[in-house]
Amino acid sequence: LNHQLTQLPTTIFTVMSALASEHGAINLGQGFPDTEGPAHLTEVAAQALQDGRNQYAPLTGLPELREAVARSNARFYGLQIDPAREVIVTSGATEGLASSLAALLNPGDEVVVIEPAYDTYLPMIRLLGAVPKLVRLTPPEWSLPRDELAAAFGPKTKAIILNSPMNPVGKVFSEDELQFIAGLVAQHDAYALCDEVYEHLTFGARHVPLMTLPGMRERCVRIGSAGKSFSMTGWKVGYITAPAALAAVIAKAHQNLAFSTAPNLQRAVAVGLDQDTAYFETLASDMQLRRDILASGLREMGFSVLPCDGTYFLTANIRGVGELMTGAETDLEWSRRMTVEAGVTVIPVSAFYDGALPGAPSHLVRFAFCKKPIILEQALTRLRDRI
Amino acid sequence: LNHQLTQLPTTIFTVMSALASEHGAINLGQGFPDTEGPAHLTEVAAQALQDGRNQYAPLTGLPELREAVARSNARFYGLQIDPAREVIVTSGATEGLASSLAALLNPGDEVVVIEPAYDTYLPMIRLLGAVPKLVRLTPPEWSLPRDELAAAFGPKTKAIILNSPMNPVGKVFSEDELQFIAGLVAQHDAYALCDEVYEHLTFGARHVPLMTLPGMRERCVRIGSAGKSFSMTGWKVGYITAPAALAAVIAKAHQNLAFSTAPNLQRAVAVGLDQDTAYFETLASDMQLRRDILASGLREMGFSVLPCDGTYFLTANIRGVGELMTGAETDLEWSRRMTVEAGVTVIPVSAFYDGALPGAPSHLVRFAFCKKPIILEQALTRLRDRI
Ligand SMILES: CSCCC(=O)C(=O)O
Ligand SMILES: CSCCC(=O)C(=O)O
Repeated sequence: LNHQLTQLPTTIFTVMSALASEHGAINLGQGFPDTEGPAHLTEVAAQALQDGRNQYAPLTGLPELREAVARSNARFYGLQIDPAREVIVTSGATEGLASSLAALLNPGDEVVVIEPAYDTYLPMIRLLGAVPKLVRLTPPEWSLPRDELAAAFGPKTKAIILNSPMNPVGKVFSEDELQFIAGLVAQHDAYALCDEVYEHLTFGARHVPLMTLPGMRERCVRIGSAGKSFSMTGWKVGYITAPAALAAVIAKAHQNLAFSTAPNLQRAVAVGLDQDTAYFETLASDMQLRRDILASGLREMGFSVLPCDGTYFLTANIRGVGELMTGAETDLEWSRRMTVEAGVTVIPVSAFYDGALPGAPSHLVRFAFCKKPIILEQALTRLRDRI
Repeated sequence: LNHQLTQLPTTIFTVMSALASEHGAINLGQGFPDTEGPAHLTEVAAQALQDGRNQYAPLTGLPELREAVARSNARFYGLQIDPAREVIVTSGATEGLASSLAALLNPGDEVVVIEPAYDTYLPMIRLLGAVPKLVRLTPPEWSLPRDELAAAFGPKTKAIILNSPMNPVGKVFSEDELQFIAGLVAQHDAYALCDEVYEHLTFGARHVPLMTLPGMRERCVRIGSAGKSFSMTGWKVGYITAPAALAAVIAKAHQNLAFSTAPNLQRAVAVGLDQDTAYFETLASDMQLRRDILASGLREMGFSVLPCDGTYFLTANIRGVGELMTGAETDLEWSRRMTVEAGVTVIPVSAFYDGALPGAPSHLVRFAFCKKPIILEQALTRLRDRI
């Protein structure tokens, strides 16, 4: 059987969610909201099921959704996108990432990956016979080590994966950092695969797609997520924006990995993208409120909380907090123990690092705050009770 | 960009469907029914959207759907399947095939593929760095050349892909053929990837999963399709049945290619699988009626129609039929011309052969008969008018 996959552990999200439900813990692990997205979208999706169009959607997506994706690119970022040739709807952003990597890479190509990294990047790169070149952000500020990043690029570099706003650390890359990255991408005639699933979940910081920087329009693949933008993570509808020549190849990957996506969900997502700006502002401000509740509660308990300008996630240092640490415990052990003993589930940040390499931080955990304020308060109380 | 994918033409289904709609042709190309599946399933799917569970389904599928898949395996084939460890729900059978191939293959492995072959098999095998070994069925009976099949197996063989009932030719492999294949699989310590998406669409012939043969339970991956079994091809819900050790690796591929599938559609599919036997019998007999309308109409016009015991598809010889053939025309040219001139779209059978190799038949086309009888009659009239 496949060597890469057999070595791979089950995703940490499934492991921790299973442990959470086994122990009746409050699940601040896997990133999904406990408040459903807009009811009018679910109604559109339900209506669309009953209008007699439940057969294959076009390979690259329903025209109405592709047009809505193009409008959204124009509205939020001033990007002019051809909906017929530069948008591909995928069965979730994960499939979008897989299809984009399959289109970009040949065996032996190198891909620059910034750690901590979302957990499908490395396995997908390796499954395709390509080679990840890892660069680690430096906690507690999650700053970008520019020299190391520059050194990771080389003659074999085909692409960099840039996740901003960034899971698990909540970093929103600054324009200055983006300019530096754009320079490297152009210099090395490479592409950037921009995982921007949290594009509408920023707290004050402004999210700038790398694609909007000079020279980057033809080098970037931008991936968005209906799950994250409309709080329907189960729908698994993603959308790719890419220059036409690249989009044509991604479409061929998508053709072989999934072919198409449920038309009724696509229609609801099209309506979602056209919602007024207030929807997106409220989505972000509601989430910011949740971040603040969690962050201040954790700080009061003695955790040092790392900066967070976007996403669903907050990272915190577990060292030296009350009686919570037994000593030499790793983040994974702590996460398991808190599930069992405190009834609160988190994700160890080390799960976002290549397991084969030494030096990953083992003192940080990720809390998902995309939960009702009362649930966050309960989680804080449970943790406090354990101290 | 990826060499395999850039070389790949856009799928023939998209090409011909676009041509059909451009010319207002009756589309007997891409295989999707023009009659929707059971309304009570759409209602379940619509209701489920509104019950507030639109977040991530479990990685391997909702328990209720995995249990329904296991029950269906027991009811139709007497297979005892563990729903917790031997079933994986995928975002369509295409994703199921991709995930299964990713789990089975390492670069350099060989996969036996029977031509004419569904159009994602070869690209996916090559994308993974593996090598297809092609064996061609012999028209007009689409008989299996056993010596050639045996010769295609060797020390590097990891798997065979077996599509029965078989698209595009409507062949249902006989028990005798299956025994021969099982012998080769066992002898070479290989696996069989069984694409059985048309399992419930057979006309008299009995579909026997290879997995039910002695020694095959631990060597087969069986892929089913809600799209095909419930006439909802747009839903893109597939299900894999595989021995636990193999299913665990397929789940890891699925984790990276798609992660999960819309929960509301999964719930409807679970209800679909539990429908009484009469539903499945009517599905097949309605389709058989359509096959018979099309086959006899084509025969009356002078086409020789090849045998068809299952699927949505019938193949016919286009040579020497009235004025329809200009002479040296290929099946692709003919298919294009009939779309434009007769207003009827079909799929050239040569599209199911490796384009790089000589000797594929160029005198056969595929008609999809999963359409209303009146539409089939109209298509026949249009063709007749062109003779
Ligand atoms: C696809 S499950 C993981 C969800 C997620 O994005 C996260 O928790 O990081
Ligand atoms: C996924 S589009 C092709 C549908 C199909 O199975 C066919 O027409 O052969």
